[in-house]
Amino acid sequence: MKQIEWSNGELSLLDQRKLPLSVEYLKCVNFMQVYDAIKTLAVRGAPLIGVAAAMGVVLASKESAFEPLSKIKTYTAEAALKLRSARPTAVNLMWALDRMLPLINSDEDDLTSYLKALEREALAIWAEDIDLCDKIGAFGAELIPRDASIITHCNTGSLATAGSGTALSVIRHAFRQGKNIHVYADETRPLLQGSRLTVWELCEDRIPCTLICDNMAAHVMKTKNITLAITGADRIASNGDSANKIGTYGLAIAAAYHGIPFYIAAPYSTVDLAVSSGKDIVIEERQPDEVCRCGGVRVAPEICRAFNPAFDVTPAELITGIITDKGVIYPPYDEKLRKAALRK
Amino acid sequence: MKQIEWSNGELSLLDQRKLPLSVEYLKCVNFMQVYDAIKTLAVRGAPLIGVAAAMGVVLASKESAFEPLSKIKTYTAEAALKLRSARPTAVNLMWALDRMLPLINSDEDDLTSYLKALEREALAIWAEDIDLCDKIGAFGAELIPRDASIITHCNTGSLATAGSGTALSVIRHAFRQGKNIHVYADETRPLLQGSRLTVWELCEDRIPCTLICDNMAAHVMKTKNITLAITGADRIASNGDSANKIGTYGLAIAAAYHGIPFYIAAPYSTVDLAVSSGKDIVIEERQPDEVCRCGGVRVAPEICRAFNPAFDVTPAELITGIITDKGVIYPPYDEKLRKAALRK
Repeated sequence: MKQIEWSNGELSLLDQRKLPLSVEYLKCVNFMQVYDAIKTLAVRGAPLIGVAAAMGVVLASKESAFEPLSKIKTYTAEAALKLRSARPTAVNLMWALDRMLPLINSDEDDLTSYLKALEREALAIWAEDIDLCDKIGAFGAELIPRDASIITHCNTGSLATAGSGTALSVIRHAFRQGKNIHVYADETRPLLQGSRLTVWELCEDRIPCTLICDNMAAHVMKTKNITLAITGADRIASNGDSANKIGTYGLAIAAAYHGIPFYIAAPYSTVDLAVSSGKDIVIEERQPDEVCRCGGVRVAPEICRAFNPAFDVTPAELITGIITDKGVIYPPYDEKLRKAALRK
Repeated sequence: MKQIEWSNGELSLLDQRKLPLSVEYLKCVNFMQVYDAIKTLAVRGAPLIGVAAAMGVVLASKESAFEPLSKIKTYTAEAALKLRSARPTAVNLMWALDRMLPLINSDEDDLTSYLKALEREALAIWAEDIDLCDKIGAFGAELIPRDASIITHCNTGSLATAGSGTALSVIRHAFRQGKNIHVYADETRPLLQGSRLTVWELCEDRIPCTLICDNMAAHVMKTKNITLAITGADRIASNGDSANKIGTYGLAIAAAYHGIPFYIAAPYSTVDLAVSSGKDIVIEERQPDEVCRCGGVRVAPEICRAFNPAFDVTPAELITGIITDKGVIYPPYDEKLRKAALRK
């Protein structure tokens, strides 16, 4: 099952809101459909929304084929700006669009070449993401002992990337190496990416796993001999502070309390050197309704207020190491993250 | 709205599984109906299930009015044993039944006097619970500053006791004293006692509150200037280790990390001096299905495994103080909890 497909000028996005009960694709022929898919979390996962947004730019460039090229360029640039606003926290979205930008604004005066160049770059981002996932998986698997009980949060697998995932790629690689792995997957309220997506991916791959509610993680750490915790990230500040799905911070605190190593796995493009610490990362707040509902059913009283931050920031002091496609980076992060930028 | 009512030999229990969407009562005329109500969490909350179980004994004693008294005594004793097995973790259940035991096995040879004595004792336990809640509330309110943002977990209010609650009684008392209170209520997966019950009680009392998912607690502690955290308990070991609803342990770890005081509020009867530490507290494991479902809707893949501990144990080192009807007890707990047993 493909999470994203490109064929005959049409982008198909697996509608992740419907999983695991139903497998449906959103067919996108214009960039606003991609914007909506990102905004509503039909497509999600920091790396995957980067790829989807780049493809959204390609769609935008083809929407008004009979206009003069200058108008097409303006329209495509506006589309890129709109796509950038779909979600504020994940830096991969900005990073992918920044890579498209020089091509959007290029001097190219032949329409066919212009369109071709955009598509080539977006597909390159896509292909690179697949490659990055494998590199992350390979570097990370070295940290996993022969027998390991691993706790993870949210979804960081094929459904979060164009490839095998970030944290889940590490788990997949270790499992394929014949290691004896058991995964405890947080359900990840409010949108249940853990129970709906992660457990589904793990079951498909026959990797032994157990679903838990987020609030069981500390008890599991105390009673289930957990080897390590590993999650993805949506944005990593230059000091190592990492924004990720809400609940990651609490998980990292619990891991530290139990002396359990806590790793972040993410493509290096998740590092935002322009942001010096987690304090400067914008945290997306979503509709309270997501908290008041559970499995689509209203569970809280109608008049109730709710708070729904989509992410939190785990401070660098709680992170044992950051597993990237450029290798595993250990504290102190600032200098090492900057140096890694130069690595191939 | 009454959480429990006794009238004409019939016990009415508010079916908490249906709240807040529907207000329904279970009419119990025999002890097995009470057993089922406790077992299925129609009635829940450590103090309230103690009261309900005592009333269940009263119902049992009246079920076979035409049998010889010796048979009635045997049947009632068996009923008490069955009721005791309904849930393993909350000690209040055992404590209430232990109070009924001498009367169940008494030498009383007049049926009417025998039945009267059982009913009198059960109603005394009930009345005392109402009184205990107020005492806990009064002692605890002294710890709440004029302006306070309080985080709580599960339901510890009128729906968990026969009175105004434990942790929620503290909040209620402080609010009635005119303090400026804001409560952040954990939704408390898997059964959502926070969103379904606590937020509902707080809204009824017009106490300002905000519902959050359990995994948001650490982020809320970091960003919302939380004054203190307070929860109930189902069993407290003599060293202060406290078993409470799953998620309490993680909340206490997060509170400690943020330097936020973490209190337990519970009637002194929750203290089990026979248990020296949390290691010896039996943790109830419930059906995995509760984790795989959300708001009654299946959200995880059909083949998925889940772990569903109903409680966890918070070690004494994370507990700032234990608020009881005998006053607030501070560490080191062992000696002070034993001494408090002697207090009126």
